[in-house]
Amino acid sequence: MVRVTQRRRVTRLTADGGVRERADTLAGEEPLEIRIGGRPLSVTMRTPGHDFDLVVGFLHGEGIVRGWDDVAQVDYRSGIGADGQRDYNVVDVTLAEGVAPPDPSLERHVYTSSSCGVCGTSSIEAVRRVGVHDLTADAVSHPLAELLALPDRLREGQAVFERTGGVHAAGLFVPGDDGLTLACLREDVGRHNAVDKVVGAALRELGTPLRGAVLQVSGRASFELVQKAAMAGVPVLSAVSAPSSLAVELAEDVGMTLLGFNRGTSLNVYTGAARVR
Amino acid sequence: MVRVTQRRRVTRLTADGGVRERADTLAGEEPLEIRIGGRPLSVTMRTPGHDFDLVVGFLHGEGIVRGWDDVAQVDYRSGIGADGQRDYNVVDVTLAEGVAPPDPSLERHVYTSSSCGVCGTSSIEAVRRVGVHDLTADAVSHPLAELLALPDRLREGQAVFERTGGVHAAGLFVPGDDGLTLACLREDVGRHNAVDKVVGAALRELGTPLRGAVLQVSGRASFELVQKAAMAGVPVLSAVSAPSSLAVELAEDVGMTLLGFNRGTSLNVYTGAARVR
Repeated sequence: MVRVTQRRRVTRLTADGGVRERADTLAGEEPLEIRIGGRPLSVTMRTPGHDFDLVVGFLHGEGIVRGWDDVAQVDYRSGIGADGQRDYNVVDVTLAEGVAPPDPSLERHVYTSSSCGVCGTSSIEAVRRVGVHDLTADAVSHPLAELLALPDRLREGQAVFERTGGVHAAGLFVPGDDGLTLACLREDVGRHNAVDKVVGAALRELGTPLRGAVLQVSGRASFELVQKAAMAGVPVLSAVSAPSSLAVELAEDVGMTLLGFNRGTSLNVYTGAARVR
Repeated sequence: MVRVTQRRRVTRLTADGGVRERADTLAGEEPLEIRIGGRPLSVTMRTPGHDFDLVVGFLHGEGIVRGWDDVAQVDYRSGIGADGQRDYNVVDVTLAEGVAPPDPSLERHVYTSSSCGVCGTSSIEAVRRVGVHDLTADAVSHPLAELLALPDRLREGQAVFERTGGVHAAGLFVPGDDGLTLACLREDVGRHNAVDKVVGAALRELGTPLRGAVLQVSGRASFELVQKAAMAGVPVLSAVSAPSSLAVELAEDVGMTLLGFNRGTSLNVYTGAARVR
């Protein structure tokens, strides 16, 4: 069964001796195997839903595809399983003609194939080799008040979190006539999956680089999130929580504005302060 | 440079127009490549420190080693790098005689090698095949008040979080004369790394199964965390946040008590209520 959420009976105990049985909603978590031309590339534990966006966004972050044009076909594994059901936990991608399949040596390094160097510096060099967008050319700036409002706007859109309290979210905000507009919001048990789903949708609907955009994430900003945002040409990454040291180094290196501890009334600017008005 | 935390200048902006430059402490994040007999197995982004525990804990969770006796040697990659420094981001493990190296087909599935099935059910079967401890034989029970106190005790021990606000933590509490005693606490930018570090240390100092123990984690309870705890024979996993659907299924399957939303005054019991007094 592949479900975004699952209902389950749970016992709630309180310090004062209270015992209450009730139905609880859990965030769905299922493995998704990503294959290219039938060959397994990676497995990720994800919340089912938007699987094709997840897969194409993931492949984009790894530098394997530049967009949906590089994908000839993406579908759940064909055929019917032993249980008579179609298999919704394996997605097979056929790359377009002329698109090179990933280096087999990368297959070992799920999610960190571009950071398989032996130190932070070589990780950043590896990302640069894959070819990120030149963010320094993106001269966008956003009013502080708009940036401070993003975590609340993200939370408002989190339908699954509302019910489960157990998922990460990523929201892509793009410049519009009335300031930043929510273009896409995705939730997932894995923070990197939520970003991959957003990027996959953005690649289809907006194309890259995502000039002027702000990616707001619900948790911390890790190296991987900065990498994925950089690959998509997002100039501003805003996190509700702390960034890691390597996330800050990479953001600085690629010219990204990195905001952390964005809590509605204050935020920290780690890099690229010129994009905050 | 391999550091647990890094200092960095940051600009703090507040909604009322405040601008404050100050030094901020970031949680360290560096890639760690794990090799077996010189052959790369996996790369994880981790906070440097307790690397050998992390590696042995990881290999234990994957069913590759049963304990430190299965490890003949674990060390940073020998030799001096181009920069004249030793390489502290590659750890090479020599397995003891008679210990089978991992199936090469698993190398693709970093961190999810035992969940590379095509649906949740087969993931759980894969974990069972690897051979977890029989938790149903562990008849321990703990007073509710003691369990509710664990998140605060975890937080008190979080030295890195105190400074950075940016790391996950895992604490192993074992039964003692005065109730649950903290045996080991580790922090890491990756929740699974924090648990691997705790398991690696516990394997060395306490051995498995970790009868009567409670593993308290700072964030959510994912499938992977339940799996790692089950492999170490931990009968109770307590999370500050929500569990995923597959985490609950696996906990039920292996006879583990799974507690979620443990916030000091109340908690949810998802499975194994008999271990809560």
